[in-house]
Amino acid sequence: MTRSGTPAESSLLLTDLYQLTMLDSYFRRGMTQPAAFEFFVRALPPSRGFLVAAGLEQVVHHLEALRATPEELRWVADSGRFDDAFLERLAALRFTGDVDAMPEGTVCFPDEPLLRVVAPLPEAQLVETRIVNLLHFETLVASKAARCVLVAGGRRLIDFGLRRAHGAEAGLLAARASWVGGFDGTATVLANLRFDMPVVGTMAHSYVLAHDGEERAFADFARDRPGDVVLLLDTWDTERAAERVVRLAPALAAEGIQIHGVRLDSGDLGEHARRVRRILDDGGLPDVTIFASGNLDEHAVARLVAAGAPIDGFGIGTRLDTSADAPYLDCAYKLQEYAGVPRRKLSEGKATWPGRRQVYRRVGSDGVLAGDAVTLVDDPLPGEPLLRPVLRGGRRVATLPDARAARERTLAQLACLPEGLRRLADPAPYAVEIAPALRHLAAELDARPT
Amino acid sequence: MTRSGTPAESSLLLTDLYQLTMLDSYFRRGMTQPAAFEFFVRALPPSRGFLVAAGLEQVVHHLEALRATPEELRWVADSGRFDDAFLERLAALRFTGDVDAMPEGTVCFPDEPLLRVVAPLPEAQLVETRIVNLLHFETLVASKAARCVLVAGGRRLIDFGLRRAHGAEAGLLAARASWVGGFDGTATVLANLRFDMPVVGTMAHSYVLAHDGEERAFADFARDRPGDVVLLLDTWDTERAAERVVRLAPALAAEGIQIHGVRLDSGDLGEHARRVRRILDDGGLPDVTIFASGNLDEHAVARLVAAGAPIDGFGIGTRLDTSADAPYLDCAYKLQEYAGVPRRKLSEGKATWPGRRQVYRRVGSDGVLAGDAVTLVDDPLPGEPLLRPVLRGGRRVATLPDARAARERTLAQLACLPEGLRRLADPAPYAVEIAPALRHLAAELDARPT
Repeated sequence: MTRSGTPAESSLLLTDLYQLTMLDSYFRRGMTQPAAFEFFVRALPPSRGFLVAAGLEQVVHHLEALRATPEELRWVADSGRFDDAFLERLAALRFTGDVDAMPEGTVCFPDEPLLRVVAPLPEAQLVETRIVNLLHFETLVASKAARCVLVAGGRRLIDFGLRRAHGAEAGLLAARASWVGGFDGTATVLANLRFDMPVVGTMAHSYVLAHDGEERAFADFARDRPGDVVLLLDTWDTERAAERVVRLAPALAAEGIQIHGVRLDSGDLGEHARRVRRILDDGGLPDVTIFASGNLDEHAVARLVAAGAPIDGFGIGTRLDTSADAPYLDCAYKLQEYAGVPRRKLSEGKATWPGRRQVYRRVGSDGVLAGDAVTLVDDPLPGEPLLRPVLRGGRRVATLPDARAARERTLAQLACLPEGLRRLADPAPYAVEIAPALRHLAAELDARPT
Repeated sequence: MTRSGTPAESSLLLTDLYQLTMLDSYFRRGMTQPAAFEFFVRALPPSRGFLVAAGLEQVVHHLEALRATPEELRWVADSGRFDDAFLERLAALRFTGDVDAMPEGTVCFPDEPLLRVVAPLPEAQLVETRIVNLLHFETLVASKAARCVLVAGGRRLIDFGLRRAHGAEAGLLAARASWVGGFDGTATVLANLRFDMPVVGTMAHSYVLAHDGEERAFADFARDRPGDVVLLLDTWDTERAAERVVRLAPALAAEGIQIHGVRLDSGDLGEHARRVRRILDDGGLPDVTIFASGNLDEHAVARLVAAGAPIDGFGIGTRLDTSADAPYLDCAYKLQEYAGVPRRKLSEGKATWPGRRQVYRRVGSDGVLAGDAVTLVDDPLPGEPLLRPVLRGGRRVATLPDARAARERTLAQLACLPEGLRRLADPAPYAVEIAPALRHLAAELDARPT
């Protein structure tokens, strides 16, 4: 049986069961003093040199909308796991805390908090699962997208990944995150409706296959959709299709219809692009652009650009939306402080730095990022503090930059990356210093009994 | 700006823009004759020998609920891309077609259609993106889960992956798909509400860290949540924590509270399990189970089981929900026939078999799968036909098995896998024959002009 009800995206029950059982215990014990949790990445996947923070807008929306629906409260009651006192506390629960975070589009590194929540312990605990779920995925995809941007040399990059993204929200958020990472648009219609981002489209093989012949399909599409004429060439034979485009163009032009571009989707894209470019140029169509898609990622784009393939834009799908070479980040949302006392976990390979932290970034006279330092919030250091106030008492203290603004930040920051971080492989290490104040606090806590 | 409105999960606009522009052209041309599309996987990721079909229930729900909301129609109108005639057609659009599919939980292979849609071309075209999005992801995760089941030797397997799944729906559908693949439950609360699947929970490091001392945390949790006493041992020192459990147990027992289990989440899980088992047994707690989590996948489970680690259950998260070693399948939803004429695309490396197809499975006298044959629907072969009628004229022709029933099918089918397909690496090839009738049709089509 499948029930629908509240959309998954905003459900308070989109969480792990242990969050609810721990909440129950916190409520019983009166453990509702302020807790500080921070989200950070422990280590980068091998090929990555930096990340691009993304997902904050969705986190803020989730926190602002946090409340149990009647259906959810009924589930809690019917589960037989919780008593009426818990039900009442859960029904009354809202997010009333503070959030500080790096603005979306900020280049960031391991060990750096991207976001801090300070709220009564039950609130800060309950939202862990969804905060990680959102920040992890959008940061993952924005970071992958930024790698494509670094090698595309200004060519158009479009997200094509919805169908093989991991579900509906993955497709939508990948569209958004790739835009934040510097992409130019997406094929996903709903992303335009939700995020006001550019949406573009071409045609599918099925359109060509459903017609009696390829030339007929091209002509019909151009006449029916004169504003969208990007013709797909590889249903049967790419170069023969390009020749058909050349033959068709004069008749369309006489009707005032311009062919905007063609799309290649299989085979050796660089070789096909060269041949098709020649056919189009020789056929008097130098302004028809060539768009390429099919199993692309940043490495394929880099190779095609380096080889001088005459490709004007790329549709990048599956490998972007799933971040295929690194489909997850080693990240966490950890308790840093409770009731005024800093906290530190020492689990093997997963020890954390304690306390409320801030990141300071130094920039060289040439504008290039010169190194970060992570320290405690009451230990100001030279440089720009990266975490900024977002919510106070559950309310926004400043306008939240949207995806469009985040994209501009990303592009500005990519322009300031050290040369060694622009490489797709073997990135140079970037200096992230753990400041003495933080090291001292950690040592002090380690000396206490547990 | 972010707008919410219709949940992404069921939006008609959760599709690629080209589906809408192609629809516009189909409507203008009266191209509304029956089209047959099939979903299939082209090739398996290197380590995979088989797949487990999943996601059909969500596809059927999507098709049954397909209709444009007023907000969506407003977007279409406001986009400036479509005229009133299109808007009217889109507003009236419902799914009225036929679906045949393998039941969820069916073991399947490349080149085999998992699902066929036969509907007026615009309907069958529009739903492509979401059908692929759902079947791809659930099949991906169910297949990964089944690999874990094959090596777990009956130990409990729980999905822990929501936080690093790719968004809300990925977390929910991964919970469902892992259950279909043979898992025992999930930590994701909403999956219980939506799919009626078992939900389980332990405790987090933050719970321990928020307390004054580990023993205090264990005692509080056990007293507050006597039905859920699984204590997390690795916040500071795993074995010392196990000793605390032993010291605490008698006092709790005197109050009628039983410690059910402990969880290990870092370090050498096999070694910690052995030491903790000894501490618990020596402390008179032989019935306290040991549950392990932390960066697990089927390979880690296989190693721990082979080494005889005394672990009773595994929490598998990130690598399951992202199918980390193979985060996507090379799959497609292709036009097989339009207006009674079979269709075939010949794109390099992506050629398809034409026509409406069926899969016949032969089973040996020992019950073991003995080979499949793919042929045309009007060419019956020996064996069991795997695609069964699901929808006719948009309505269900049979009860749709839910996830629980699908899980039973998976477990029955896993028991019938040939030995060579049970290996995690280098699986033996399984015979999937393309029948002569299908080859002949393909050759006939290739000889026609395009």
